[in-house]
Amino acid sequence: MTFEVGELVAGARAGRPRAVARLISLVEGASPRLREVMAALAPHTGHAYVVGLTGSPGVGKSTCTSALVGAYRRAGKRVGVLAVDPSSPFSGGALLGDRIRMGEHATDPGVYIRSMATRGHLGGLAWAAPQAVRVLDAAGCDVIFVETVGVGQSEVEVAAQADTTVVLLAPGMGDGVQAAKAGILEVGDVFVVNKADREGADATVRELNHMLGLGEARAPGDWRPSVVKAVAARGEGVDEMVAALDKHRAWLEEHGALAARRVRRAALEVETIAVTALRERMADPSGDARLTALAERITAGTLDPYTAADELVAGLTGE
Amino acid sequence: MTFEVGELVAGARAGRPRAVARLISLVEGASPRLREVMAALAPHTGHAYVVGLTGSPGVGKSTCTSALVGAYRRAGKRVGVLAVDPSSPFSGGALLGDRIRMGEHATDPGVYIRSMATRGHLGGLAWAAPQAVRVLDAAGCDVIFVETVGVGQSEVEVAAQADTTVVLLAPGMGDGVQAAKAGILEVGDVFVVNKADREGADATVRELNHMLGLGEARAPGDWRPSVVKAVAARGEGVDEMVAALDKHRAWLEEHGALAARRVRRAALEVETIAVTALRERMADPSGDARLTALAERITAGTLDPYTAADELVAGLTGE
Repeated sequence: MTFEVGELVAGARAGRPRAVARLISLVEGASPRLREVMAALAPHTGHAYVVGLTGSPGVGKSTCTSALVGAYRRAGKRVGVLAVDPSSPFSGGALLGDRIRMGEHATDPGVYIRSMATRGHLGGLAWAAPQAVRVLDAAGCDVIFVETVGVGQSEVEVAAQADTTVVLLAPGMGDGVQAAKAGILEVGDVFVVNKADREGADATVRELNHMLGLGEARAPGDWRPSVVKAVAARGEGVDEMVAALDKHRAWLEEHGALAARRVRRAALEVETIAVTALRERMADPSGDARLTALAERITAGTLDPYTAADELVAGLTGE
Repeated sequence: MTFEVGELVAGARAGRPRAVARLISLVEGASPRLREVMAALAPHTGHAYVVGLTGSPGVGKSTCTSALVGAYRRAGKRVGVLAVDPSSPFSGGALLGDRIRMGEHATDPGVYIRSMATRGHLGGLAWAAPQAVRVLDAAGCDVIFVETVGVGQSEVEVAAQADTTVVLLAPGMGDGVQAAKAGILEVGDVFVVNKADREGADATVRELNHMLGLGEARAPGDWRPSVVKAVAARGEGVDEMVAALDKHRAWLEEHGALAARRVRRAALEVETIAVTALRERMADPSGDARLTALAERITAGTLDPYTAADELVAGLTGE
């Protein structure tokens, strides 16, 4: 397929959904032309506010996202949703699911909803998600929600690469403990106890307050995470979620922390692209032959993996 | 803490649980002395058969693992269990959980059970798990089970880095579809439909056969995945699981595929160590200053991430 990068980028900036979708497909497919795409997008990014959402399967991430999308749309904002949760009705190419669950938003030209599958690519989610966010940003989204399931290491990290990270929980035995184990508590700026009409909601809030308080003592200038109760499916607590997001954003701006977060995020993005490029060199025919020869010596027990890695890096960097 | 690597390695080889535990803790903590440890272990590895187990939360991974451990112990094998599933009762340092769930095995000197948490380390699970496996291998385990939750990208990849990968499912609406979305079907050599006394077990088996059959046509020499029904909690289907594992192992050996798998696994291990070393260089003070400067230009919209990555790699490799 031939295409003009300039034309696609112009189309995306003009808000044409097909151009946006096409650009995100290039990210998903790890197109060699992404380099051109990202160069063309660069001057038009940095406008969007990026919100990461994560939580265990079943806590109602999609429902919360949908409710938040509605709230921001009512405030006249353009909204992007990037769902990289394999269990989400938004993702895995489940377009039908998208339409059903995001019913009121599916035909709204002010909303881009995109599910992403990045299996098999070397860099995976960490490589693809920031580039997809860049596309939505350049397309004029004011707010971008990046939704991931809070179970996998890569997935939690992707949700943490945001201006504000929302961690969702639901009442139920040990949910907080599970979340703590999975490492998602430490990435949350805002916590939402969803399905708060269920038994145990107050206990979950208490447990959460307890666990968050257990962390190191907060320095005077540190953010104290908000905890919000919601029943997103009925629209309850949505205003409170928006208020908590706004409060965190205001705090970041007041403390000069927003710029710092974005620099850190860009640094991670660059690092991931650089590492992926290095891994691709290791996997090219000459690199692969060298790597296989090293691996054969390891399986024979005559070489250890660290010495092998030294040799691989030396070959790569010409040391 | 000072310690003699040679002494620890000798202790692990002699089957002393404390030495094994200590070495795995060094892996978890990404000790700088791992290089020495792995060099000392290298001549003593390559004996163990490595089985990856993965599946969604709630399919009964720990119960199945425990049942398999019992079966191999009855056959006189030494067994290692490495649980890197954050939702597993084995993991997150949940030693009490380990003891309760692995009741019959907790005091068996022929079984090492270890949960691993690797949050926060640059290389993560992909970096740590193979090194922990190497420790258990050198400690004389005949079989090593590596259990991960089949939800995250990193977690599924870790389970796939095995001689035989077991994917667990349980009857229930759309479980197979969820598994397909999460990318776990493609890594399975053996499929276990656990909790097969529940309604819908036969439907799950049918759905699974259907989805596995949907893949590309199998070449004459290709492995056809086994599907086994089990109720691991009652010990039903355990012999069949063991038979399926043995069958896959025999197939790998017959087709010369076992050596090839192990070389590929060692290659990935080396690549991950090398990439982590490169990332560490990027994160050292001089690398970090360069990266931050690049990231600041990106957030200002004057640089794109690919060009930044080129500059970072050039600085790293002295190009």
